[in-house]
Amino acid sequence: MPNPGTVKAGYTRAIDFKHGCVEMKHGSGGRAMAQLIQQLFVAAFDNDFLRQSNDQACFQGSNERMVISTDSYVITPLFFPGGDIGSLAVHGTINDIAMSGATPSYLAASFILEEGFALSDLKRIVDSMAQSAMAASVPIVTGDTKVVERGNADGVFITTTGIGRIAEGINISSENARPGDRILISGTLGDHGIAVMALRENLSFQTSIQSDTAALHDLVANMVAAVPAIHVLRDPTRGGVATVLNEIAQQSAVGMMLYESRLPMREQVNAACEFLGLDPLYIANEGKLIAICGAEDAENLLDAMRKHPLGEDAAIIGEVIEDTHCFVQMQTCFGGKRVVDWLSGEQLPRIC
Amino acid sequence: MPNPGTVKAGYTRAIDFKHGCVEMKHGSGGRAMAQLIQQLFVAAFDNDFLRQSNDQACFQGSNERMVISTDSYVITPLFFPGGDIGSLAVHGTINDIAMSGATPSYLAASFILEEGFALSDLKRIVDSMAQSAMAASVPIVTGDTKVVERGNADGVFITTTGIGRIAEGINISSENARPGDRILISGTLGDHGIAVMALRENLSFQTSIQSDTAALHDLVANMVAAVPAIHVLRDPTRGGVATVLNEIAQQSAVGMMLYESRLPMREQVNAACEFLGLDPLYIANEGKLIAICGAEDAENLLDAMRKHPLGEDAAIIGEVIEDTHCFVQMQTCFGGKRVVDWLSGEQLPRIC
Repeated sequence: MPNPGTVKAGYTRAIDFKHGCVEMKHGSGGRAMAQLIQQLFVAAFDNDFLRQSNDQACFQGSNERMVISTDSYVITPLFFPGGDIGSLAVHGTINDIAMSGATPSYLAASFILEEGFALSDLKRIVDSMAQSAMAASVPIVTGDTKVVERGNADGVFITTTGIGRIAEGINISSENARPGDRILISGTLGDHGIAVMALRENLSFQTSIQSDTAALHDLVANMVAAVPAIHVLRDPTRGGVATVLNEIAQQSAVGMMLYESRLPMREQVNAACEFLGLDPLYIANEGKLIAICGAEDAENLLDAMRKHPLGEDAAIIGEVIEDTHCFVQMQTCFGGKRVVDWLSGEQLPRIC
Repeated sequence: MPNPGTVKAGYTRAIDFKHGCVEMKHGSGGRAMAQLIQQLFVAAFDNDFLRQSNDQACFQGSNERMVISTDSYVITPLFFPGGDIGSLAVHGTINDIAMSGATPSYLAASFILEEGFALSDLKRIVDSMAQSAMAASVPIVTGDTKVVERGNADGVFITTTGIGRIAEGINISSENARPGDRILISGTLGDHGIAVMALRENLSFQTSIQSDTAALHDLVANMVAAVPAIHVLRDPTRGGVATVLNEIAQQSAVGMMLYESRLPMREQVNAACEFLGLDPLYIANEGKLIAICGAEDAENLLDAMRKHPLGEDAAIIGEVIEDTHCFVQMQTCFGGKRVVDWLSGEQLPRIC
């Protein structure tokens, strides 16, 4: 178990802005990225919205609460089993909106294109975005296109921004986890990360594992209808379940205990993780969510999730505990306990 | 004068999506970009918001109209006289919001960073964004950071998205120009483009010309207060005044007549344009706007503009005329007339 002092220090260690460079780990979703966000962006832009450290910002509209969220997508390869950068860019931002309990209303999309990129590939990506946006009933209403010289980008980068509306009485935020709460996941771990990794590494199992990329707002609507008092929703993308739970633990000033035996996982993903020496808790997902609610609501919430096609494999995977060190721990299948730490460095760059 | 048939055909000529590639001209703001947007993005995403072809989308909130706009910034060099990519990313998106007559409320910012980029430069850029956002009273409330491997980006790309609120009774859109309307500009032409070009070309006049990058929403607020019935507002960025006026002419199905003698321009910019063989009408601006209003409101609007520090050099530069070909023409200083065509190809890549 790492020294608690070290963990805290790791999270707050000062970045050397005079001599340092951007490193791949600054984009990993792990500790280095959290440091950069806190010490650079939150420090400079300095406002309460950013200090909440959610994946979106809620603000008061004229007579309703609204939410805005933005994400850039730089995934490689651009096409992968189960999706492409276009569907990912639509789903990912819809999901960040949905994780506040909001109904997504509109998307904006901005493209950075590399000179020489095949228009046939661009069309395939744009058609995929259009299809995903239509299936989700969230139109892309404005956009921008920039072109940079060959060698100054990597095919196409897409930034999508979404806005949505939050119904009255909903208060979902990463600060709201309380000791005694239950931790739920909507389905199997690691499908997206392993699907992309298999493709990059040219591994033999590449044909059978598909990315789970999906828009989760309909699932969330059903969950919120069943249990309006959900405390926290987060989608475990970059850095996986482990990183998201550590962030929530930090923001809510609580600890967590997971039960390894309850983590839903596909056989093939499990096998790939063992083969590659990877911990599935750190693998990216693009169609899954973590929900935290009071113990008394957990079974209701689980029912609502399982009734939805995107929540069929939902499970209660742990509970929130008191812990001044904000550790995430796990009871392993062998009966022991281990700390599930922040991701240090990075596991797989450009996964989203 | 080009054949009208050719102009129309040029705007609508079918792009070869099977064999074609992304070219630099697709990002120029000119005709090739208009073709790509119409034939790819508008065709695929297919909704009324996009078909309006404004730089932002207006939508109905619960009891007010709202607006959303997004832009990616890929300017090179990152630092230039009068600003940097950070201030530009804040000003540019605030301006796109303001051009609907809206008051900008919030910004989202997403960063794509190249591995190896100096953190000191990133900090300088982020501090500049923070300063610009604070000066404009438009907070950056949410964001994202991605890192790509060395050689897959060019230092830093920033995408900002803004949202704003439109007061009742304001109806500003590029479709609203009517024959008899007057065309106004808020100040001198071409400062941004020439400042950046001078730096890139290492020309001797580089020290004296500054980019005009500025947030125009306060100027717009004064203009809307003086003349609520403004018909059109647009900021002439990529492709300059000529391109923006051609777009408006097309969208409003009108022609335009400019008076060359009334175009405000700095001596140095004029000299640089003559020296480099450039037409200032196609040079990018980042702190200027074009306004179109009824003839009866033109003097009032000009007064309101000139009273604001960012509109001191405002001028009435032309009028809207009937023309089924939607040509933009100019009465030259020598008494003749010439067509001010769309920008074909591109003049200076990565200007914003």
